[in-house]
Amino acid sequence: MALKLYGIAMSTCTSRVMTCLHEKKVDFELVPVNLFAGEHKQPPFLAKNPFGLIPVLEDGDLTLFESRAISAYVAEKFTETGYDLIRYQNLKEAAQVRVWMEVESQQYHPAISPIVFQFFVAPLQGKTPDQAIIDENLVKLGKVLDIYQDKLSHTKYLAGDFYSLADLFHLPYTYYFMKTPCANLINDRPHVKAWWEDISSRPAFQKVASAMTFGEKGN
Amino acid sequence: MALKLYGIAMSTCTSRVMTCLHEKKVDFELVPVNLFAGEHKQPPFLAKNPFGLIPVLEDGDLTLFESRAISAYVAEKFTETGYDLIRYQNLKEAAQVRVWMEVESQQYHPAISPIVFQFFVAPLQGKTPDQAIIDENLVKLGKVLDIYQDKLSHTKYLAGDFYSLADLFHLPYTYYFMKTPCANLINDRPHVKAWWEDISSRPAFQKVASAMTFGEKGN
Ligand SMILES: N[C@@H](CCC(=O)N[C@@H](CS)C(=O)NCC(=O)O)C(=O)O
Ligand SMILES: N[C@@H](CCC(=O)N[C@@H](CS)C(=O)NCC(=O)O)C(=O)O
Repeated sequence: MALKLYGIAMSTCTSRVMTCLHEKKVDFELVPVNLFAGEHKQPPFLAKNPFGLIPVLEDGDLTLFESRAISAYVAEKFTETGYDLIRYQNLKEAAQVRVWMEVESQQYHPAISPIVFQFFVAPLQGKTPDQAIIDENLVKLGKVLDIYQDKLSHTKYLAGDFYSLADLFHLPYTYYFMKTPCANLINDRPHVKAWWEDISSRPAFQKVASAMTFGEKGN
Repeated sequence: MALKLYGIAMSTCTSRVMTCLHEKKVDFELVPVNLFAGEHKQPPFLAKNPFGLIPVLEDGDLTLFESRAISAYVAEKFTETGYDLIRYQNLKEAAQVRVWMEVESQQYHPAISPIVFQFFVAPLQGKTPDQAIIDENLVKLGKVLDIYQDKLSHTKYLAGDFYSLADLFHLPYTYYFMKTPCANLINDRPHVKAWWEDISSRPAFQKVASAMTFGEKGN
């Protein structure tokens, strides 16, 4: 039975999991959740995820939420198919993958997500993007990217010379960020730029990116 | 050769890893880092963690940072000793541990850490705690705890009827939070209160808690 992924293709968190599923060549059915009708705050969905957030993955009788936890589960369960995202046969490499997955979660995400929110979500709520929030987080993000620039001058990807879940976790927010007037923060750092062009051109992400049209006309 | 943990015992992130090491009955040497002298922003330490933050773990020639990544590494490497924190022999239970580890990182931590910061760190910087920040985050934390209260009325611990890394991750910040005037947020929710009393009384954490004296006289 194919896995069921509840979410919408243009959401960052759903697309994180979809990219992982494509990398692992795992079949799944995308079950749309009507966020605009508040379907995710109704009892049937809350029974799957009490936090009322997409995505949710169902694998038989197992129900999981949190996009990074779902992705790690998929990468760990389907070791034999697709691309090895977690270096499961090498404890040391696997440990570095974990470190840089955490860096994304604890350092990169808290800086980039408020910027993406201000540019894409605030306008939908009838607000103008708050420049003070944007500026404050651009400074934070710049400091993180300085460290990435240095790291990526030594290894091709964040956890080492291999693409991994740590890189993949960066894709959805950075994709939307690159559509903002702040994209130079990446483009001005040559090693980060090269890394971004490399990871965002992988076929597994390209399949997902074409549906990431949030903020475009009609969405 | 014993593991080396660079950090200080009263820091939340260091104590997270120390608790995990005690649960796993793994020997380690705590190597103090002089934060007040800025040792963590000097080249020798930055070579271990470019973000200039404690803790850092050295295991032979492997150098790791980010407390949650280090803890997961320890729990995964030392499967044969101490308490099994990750349910490594059961893919479904292990997946639930991952989900609730992510909940701590993405939902609980962003709400509780600014509160702890305002009560413990701001005064050291000569500032009075910012009540607006505290209030805003108490609302966020309350919503998360409502979900915990419900979850913990069905299972004894967050990921199921077994203590795991997901529970452990909550210990350091909650410990300091319980010393603030806001502790009723936990105490008023009976299942959360019982869970807190249970997990904070485990010997592995008790060993660590006695050194968590941040904000007390002389620290
Ligand atoms: N940390 C969660 C965040 C999930 C999340 O924020 N999902 C968004 C879409 S990207 C959502 O459901 N938003 C609807 C809402 O907030 O009401 C994850 O990584 O899965
Ligand atoms: N996400 C990191 C956070 C590390 C962190 O913030 N460490 C604090 C101590 S708890 C630190 O080094 N503070 C010193 C500073 O910010 O200069 C982790 O979990 O290890």
